[in-house]
Amino acid sequence: MKPLENDTFLRACLRQPTDYTPVWLMRQAGRYLPEYRASRARAGSFLALCKSPELATEVTLQPLERFPLDAAILFSDILTVPDAMGLGLYFADGEGPKFERPLRDEAAIQALAVPDMAKLRYVFDAVSSIRTALDGRVPLIGFSGSPFTLACYMIEGGGSDTFSRVKTMLYDRPDLLHHILDINAQAVAAYLNEQIAAGAQAVQIFDTWGGALAAGKYQEFSLAYMRRVISLLRREAEGRRVPVIVFTKGGGVWLEEIADCGCDVVGLDWTVDLADARRRVGAKVALQGNLDPNALFASPAAIQREVANLLAQTSGTGHIFNLGHGISQFTDPEHVAVLVDAVHGQKTYCTAA
Amino acid sequence: MKPLENDTFLRACLRQPTDYTPVWLMRQAGRYLPEYRASRARAGSFLALCKSPELATEVTLQPLERFPLDAAILFSDILTVPDAMGLGLYFADGEGPKFERPLRDEAAIQALAVPDMAKLRYVFDAVSSIRTALDGRVPLIGFSGSPFTLACYMIEGGGSDTFSRVKTMLYDRPDLLHHILDINAQAVAAYLNEQIAAGAQAVQIFDTWGGALAAGKYQEFSLAYMRRVISLLRREAEGRRVPVIVFTKGGGVWLEEIADCGCDVVGLDWTVDLADARRRVGAKVALQGNLDPNALFASPAAIQREVANLLAQTSGTGHIFNLGHGISQFTDPEHVAVLVDAVHGQKTYCTAA
Repeated sequence: MKPLENDTFLRACLRQPTDYTPVWLMRQAGRYLPEYRASRARAGSFLALCKSPELATEVTLQPLERFPLDAAILFSDILTVPDAMGLGLYFADGEGPKFERPLRDEAAIQALAVPDMAKLRYVFDAVSSIRTALDGRVPLIGFSGSPFTLACYMIEGGGSDTFSRVKTMLYDRPDLLHHILDINAQAVAAYLNEQIAAGAQAVQIFDTWGGALAAGKYQEFSLAYMRRVISLLRREAEGRRVPVIVFTKGGGVWLEEIADCGCDVVGLDWTVDLADARRRVGAKVALQGNLDPNALFASPAAIQREVANLLAQTSGTGHIFNLGHGISQFTDPEHVAVLVDAVHGQKTYCTAA
Repeated sequence: MKPLENDTFLRACLRQPTDYTPVWLMRQAGRYLPEYRASRARAGSFLALCKSPELATEVTLQPLERFPLDAAILFSDILTVPDAMGLGLYFADGEGPKFERPLRDEAAIQALAVPDMAKLRYVFDAVSSIRTALDGRVPLIGFSGSPFTLACYMIEGGGSDTFSRVKTMLYDRPDLLHHILDINAQAVAAYLNEQIAAGAQAVQIFDTWGGALAAGKYQEFSLAYMRRVISLLRREAEGRRVPVIVFTKGGGVWLEEIADCGCDVVGLDWTVDLADARRRVGAKVALQGNLDPNALFASPAAIQREVANLLAQTSGTGHIFNLGHGISQFTDPEHVAVLVDAVHGQKTYCTAA
């Protein structure tokens, strides 16, 4: 492997000094890019795109060809693990992910098992292939859904506004939910370790739905299992630490506890003030975020102003610039260029930190 | 007017000692009750139900006939004010509220004005009629949407997952959004003052969408205008203070600032720990909340356990029990009975406080 040309992102994750604030964007390889839509059309389906290491490599690299981003992130779906468990992932047109065989009775829950990682070989092959294609330009981030977020889809059978099935189980049969989460945590840890073995240089755990939980329940049913995952991870590869990023959307109220789960970086949505977040967590972790993705619909001047506002809330150290959630498919790619330049343009700011 | 038989709710709002923790539920008059569905069918439409003082009185009192709730809340819609401004509120079947004439250009925004309160006479007549029907049993809560929440619907033309129109305006043309919010704040204050004059004994401002805003933007575009509304309210009627409740769903990260906006009570969604909230705001305000409405799908034993958990987080003083959001239409009314009894059954707890 060629040595990394740009390790700014990895250094920022470990709160080491950097020459500037690194930036990547959640869902940076995605539908807002015409070249992505072309690859997606060629693949025939979203799942075919995810399951082809060659096409996954192609779309992972697309945003890097356009913008001087400081990290690549594996192109994949967050539901590959339950699919490998046999739940039958599919995508109904315009409806988001669904499972053919959601967990609807106790027998199905008791039968759940950590899947053979060989079934996820296409993901690890994509990781290796992307590393080769990156050729040391920037680090590659691997990822997984959190145990709780996976459980939401596995129990509801798809997306949900209220998660009433999951929550009914949580309140009525917490033992069953704990069983699912225990299996999920083992599976997620194995999955991320295989990604790291294949070449992922950092990993992010997406806890998309943890923020739907009540105070106390979040700690018990989401955070505890992310902590478990992290405790099982291989934290070093190729002679470097592999940083772990935890992102709970809507988790701002629980920031101190999240920062204490063993992760290196806490991802923040846009409701959290970066300076306030830093005061709350001290020097324990790096912070990632947190521009409202909707700000990218505004004019270049407004985008530059918002970027400057956010950067002014940080010391420049231990901060990875990102959006507070995935980029919208309706975003103008030119506005992403403005954003990345605006972040990188603040170099004097960061070296002064 | 007959003197109040049960002023527990009003006393709790002002952090005065009470014999027990009072309870009411957001959307307590609603679709989960078969008698509500019968009234709704008789009215022909949801708007007809809102616009008939007689039917609004009928449905407002329905939950009180079933459960020993400690307050009634006016049955109405949060979008009556923009409807009176001429935006043309309507409900497409199963789609939520929409406006025929949303604010889509600068001319429409500049033409916006505080509506003649006579157009909202049906609401104030409903308040008077409900007070008469309540006959002093429990206090009546009036309400309005917050200036920002109204603006969301006025600009988007209906509900939205991302509020991209509102946010594009916020980032690109904050002057226009401030103009709308300024008008809305004056209108909401006039509207609530008329409700108070007609007999509302407390008022709640529903900031349903403030939690979608970024840190800093919430303070500038939502909280500041709720503060303005509150500063314009008549705070005393019939010789008693009229408490003001502010509820920003998803506002837990901004709790200290919300508690400082001039309100008497802060409503909390279920993500906030009640003990932690009390530590953060001190004795400044009462707290209202915050059971996850989904907990009502669980068994009676689980509901009792969750109620006990929540009450154990409070000192019993300055707490109004409520859900962390409106009750789901799929809730079993028997489970609501269990909830109310469980809250009231904790009397020894509260007198000890």
